[in-house]
Amino acid sequence: MRKLMLMVQYDGTDYAGFQIQPHAPTVQEELERALTGVLGEPTKVRAASRTDAGAHALGQIVTFETSNPIPAGNLVAALNERLPVAVNVVEGSEAEAQFDPRYDAVRKLYSYRILNRASGSPFMARYAWHVADPLDGEAMQCAADLLCGRHDFSAFCAAGGSATNMMRELYRFDVDDAGQVVEMHIEGDGFLYKMARNMVGTVVEVGLGRMRATTAGEVLAGRDRSRAGPTAPSCGLCLVRVSYE
Amino acid sequence: MRKLMLMVQYDGTDYAGFQIQPHAPTVQEELERALTGVLGEPTKVRAASRTDAGAHALGQIVTFETSNPIPAGNLVAALNERLPVAVNVVEGSEAEAQFDPRYDAVRKLYSYRILNRASGSPFMARYAWHVADPLDGEAMQCAADLLCGRHDFSAFCAAGGSATNMMRELYRFDVDDAGQVVEMHIEGDGFLYKMARNMVGTVVEVGLGRMRATTAGEVLAGRDRSRAGPTAPSCGLCLVRVSYE
Repeated sequence: MRKLMLMVQYDGTDYAGFQIQPHAPTVQEELERALTGVLGEPTKVRAASRTDAGAHALGQIVTFETSNPIPAGNLVAALNERLPVAVNVVEGSEAEAQFDPRYDAVRKLYSYRILNRASGSPFMARYAWHVADPLDGEAMQCAADLLCGRHDFSAFCAAGGSATNMMRELYRFDVDDAGQVVEMHIEGDGFLYKMARNMVGTVVEVGLGRMRATTAGEVLAGRDRSRAGPTAPSCGLCLVRVSYE
Repeated sequence: MRKLMLMVQYDGTDYAGFQIQPHAPTVQEELERALTGVLGEPTKVRAASRTDAGAHALGQIVTFETSNPIPAGNLVAALNERLPVAVNVVEGSEAEAQFDPRYDAVRKLYSYRILNRASGSPFMARYAWHVADPLDGEAMQCAADLLCGRHDFSAFCAAGGSATNMMRELYRFDVDDAGQVVEMHIEGDGFLYKMARNMVGTVVEVGLGRMRATTAGEVLAGRDRSRAGPTAPSCGLCLVRVSYE
């Protein structure tokens, strides 16, 4: 058996997340259907990250095993012919037999986009959280800075996750406030369940003036989920890059 | 009765065009449903342009009459609360009783977007025509230049239109080739049925090297639809602005 790796992009709006579900459309199901069709054998994939329902990816990494000798380059075009436009394979390559896209990931980069103006936009509704009240970008960056570093992120972990170790290192949390569009870049060695969206929700509370920036640091230190802000909607979230050694 | 004017944006992907249809979702239906709800009386709208199924708008203009005294500013927020995210009212204002959004329009500006690279993009699939083979932007601009001016545009008018006078003036047809994304701006005093998409289809034939730029001029002069290129897909088309005196 060969092991192959694919980099995959998707618009997650119409999917119930990456991971396969019994009664809802998922990205995994689309990929496995296309792979099974191209390879002529039932094929299962394993992903770097189980993205949430409605969240997007520019650089999701998946692996699968196959006995089919098709060159990785030919596979990409053949898969894209079978995939819906919402899911696209960017590249394919051979992987080491022991490579695991999830456990071998050393850092993940997410982006989170907010449309910050009175009226929404039909063209950004799928890809950005519409926040109508004005945001203070500088206060948001102050709050984001307090979350960076190696911490117990319990305060930002939603119920339902499988992690037992809550320690994660956040390498950066940049808030780029370009007027109507606020784009955040959040990179860490790993993320707890809904951690990125919970941090964004808290930082936005600060941006709206409902919470002080220093309070975001206290919420983190207190490890108490009930003091954090609401979970930001998944539409603004995008898995940009997964890095390996 | 007062007459009011609205500027409306929409993502047309999931609509069968602007104009109301018996068994398909339309933008007009969404607007009339929202207006009827807010104003408390059955309300019909009239638009500057009947955009095609799947085509978008940043600056569609519609008018309607009402006996309701609601200030135009309040109306915008009330409508957006009722409208789906795919349709958004940007602004509202009082209009002269005799104002007609269609017949009083003196120019219309459309944009047309192409994603020109080997692989498609899930994020642009709704908003751009994916052309995988490389396009020659300079040749496209040469062909586009030959279409500008005052001409009989029969060669680019699809069957099914209601126009009898085929003379139109095309003020500009700019082809901005920014690498992977080619964006066109097409402005004229009016457009025949599918004229913008038929011109784009022909210009793309030139960009692909299947037709010479000078031939585009000959197609125009010959007034023969069968010699023009295919109709470009509606997803790339957007009504950007309608101008009045």
